[in-house]
Amino acid sequence: MCSNCDYTIHRVNHHFGWDHSILPVERIAPGSSVYFECLDSGAGHFTPGSTVADVSTLDFSKVNPVTGPIYIDGAQPGDALKITMEGFEPSGFGWTANIPGFGLLADQFKDPALTLWSYDKVSMTPAAFSKNGKVPLKPFCGEMGVAPAAPGNHSQVPPRRVGGNLDIRDLTTGTVLYLPVEVEGALFSVGDTHAAQGDGEVCGTAMESQMNVALKFELVKGANLAMPRFTTSGPVTSHLDAKGYEVTTGIGSDLMSGARDAVSGMIDLLGSQYGLSAEEAYMLCSVCGDLRISEIVDMPNWVVSFYFPRIVFE
Amino acid sequence: MCSNCDYTIHRVNHHFGWDHSILPVERIAPGSSVYFECLDSGAGHFTPGSTVADVSTLDFSKVNPVTGPIYIDGAQPGDALKITMEGFEPSGFGWTANIPGFGLLADQFKDPALTLWSYDKVSMTPAAFSKNGKVPLKPFCGEMGVAPAAPGNHSQVPPRRVGGNLDIRDLTTGTVLYLPVEVEGALFSVGDTHAAQGDGEVCGTAMESQMNVALKFELVKGANLAMPRFTTSGPVTSHLDAKGYEVTTGIGSDLMSGARDAVSGMIDLLGSQYGLSAEEAYMLCSVCGDLRISEIVDMPNWVVSFYFPRIVFE
Repeated sequence: MCSNCDYTIHRVNHHFGWDHSILPVERIAPGSSVYFECLDSGAGHFTPGSTVADVSTLDFSKVNPVTGPIYIDGAQPGDALKITMEGFEPSGFGWTANIPGFGLLADQFKDPALTLWSYDKVSMTPAAFSKNGKVPLKPFCGEMGVAPAAPGNHSQVPPRRVGGNLDIRDLTTGTVLYLPVEVEGALFSVGDTHAAQGDGEVCGTAMESQMNVALKFELVKGANLAMPRFTTSGPVTSHLDAKGYEVTTGIGSDLMSGARDAVSGMIDLLGSQYGLSAEEAYMLCSVCGDLRISEIVDMPNWVVSFYFPRIVFE
Repeated sequence: MCSNCDYTIHRVNHHFGWDHSILPVERIAPGSSVYFECLDSGAGHFTPGSTVADVSTLDFSKVNPVTGPIYIDGAQPGDALKITMEGFEPSGFGWTANIPGFGLLADQFKDPALTLWSYDKVSMTPAAFSKNGKVPLKPFCGEMGVAPAAPGNHSQVPPRRVGGNLDIRDLTTGTVLYLPVEVEGALFSVGDTHAAQGDGEVCGTAMESQMNVALKFELVKGANLAMPRFTTSGPVTSHLDAKGYEVTTGIGSDLMSGARDAVSGMIDLLGSQYGLSAEEAYMLCSVCGDLRISEIVDMPNWVVSFYFPRIVFE
């Protein structure tokens, strides 16, 4: 993957939270490609031998370690850091958990739950789920960010204007991400690698999976971006599309309630159609189902839809 | 299109708003296919000769006429009405308007604006936009609904549990929609036909276009649906996907603000990349760009993304 990489950042160089006072571990020139050894979001807490009991011992203050930061020569506040996803080196093991207190339906799913995944890291064929499901894979990094100008350590859980825990599932190989730079050198870090995730990441975790990544860095001087943006090189759902979708909706005057209703509806549907438990369905929705805003203008009611790819069971 | 239709409902049989006291114009057996002549959402107000001045004379109380209602034999409260989209007969003319006071960015776009469209109704090749754009087409009905149990006339603008102005762009040929029945006979009506729309319909109108539609009706007894749901027969964005997407984001603790930020970002981007005016970009976003909820769990900040298909200009 990394025959052309100029630097390697080892996983020992990781940190928790975003803080511009963290010293860079490498200084690179724009145009460089960098190979990052990443940790998964649990920093190795879960293994193929894990059980649901291990969810309760996860230290939530130590989730989402990111590898870095690296200093990009010439990066100044107001520039955009242009990051091209060059490739991923997946590990073949993954996990999805319902962590009590976390997730879109945390009030309804109060008990810990855990799904373990094993996938072929060479062929990257869909990962088996339960008795007869298979989840298509598309690796990306959940956390990519630069340091905020505001001093102090900012939690690694919420994303911000400078990126961080964006959890955008289309930041895959070939995609180009632009992040607004707020401090000299940008101070970029990366982690929280995922082998698969749907739009929304509704249960709070994706198919969390350790992998290494290769990224190329360039600068767009004076871009003055308000928010991150990205460009995909091609279709984003062709790995999920072939058999169509089951779709549930939530209709009302609040987008959050609509999203919750749409996901609840899908959990019920997957239970009745495929015999999944509610916990199984919730975690499956998180790794491959998509929240879309179908309509946001027909006052006072909006439509949020949840798309589940039928290819998982067909 | 309608060699197998059992009934035709003529456009003279249209009504405004949803009201279970409106007498059905036809009574059909489950399993029947019905051909509906629909009016567009402006009831013919706009023509190929229209100018922006015509936006101000649109009577907003008379938008979205729906053809019907039809009574489906045996439909009872608690059943689901299963509607299969059999086909569309488009007119070749369409319009998109910014109507002051209406739309996701109504506070920023206070002046009326109008885009007229002409497309080949046989080949359905993408419709030309401005100097060098082309918008892929995929017809669907913005309004499909059954009568609510609550008495009185309910505005045709907001969608509800019983459907109505759902504006879900994937309710295209081959898709099967399930609506919760609240009154005997269901009392189904349809209208607001669109030749193209993105998820969100962000400026408030789609590529509004008169067309006739063929729908098949069946019943699922005792389905007890909470909300509408649907099943697509295949990929939903293969007409848009080939060249990838430009994507802007809105990050924060409110999904509505995130959606507004993401769309504002795309309007700026389309302006700088393709020289579109803000009004042009806003209307173009409405007919072919998609609002997606990328992340809704990383407390307290969510990510809403707006996907613009690059095929429009590439």
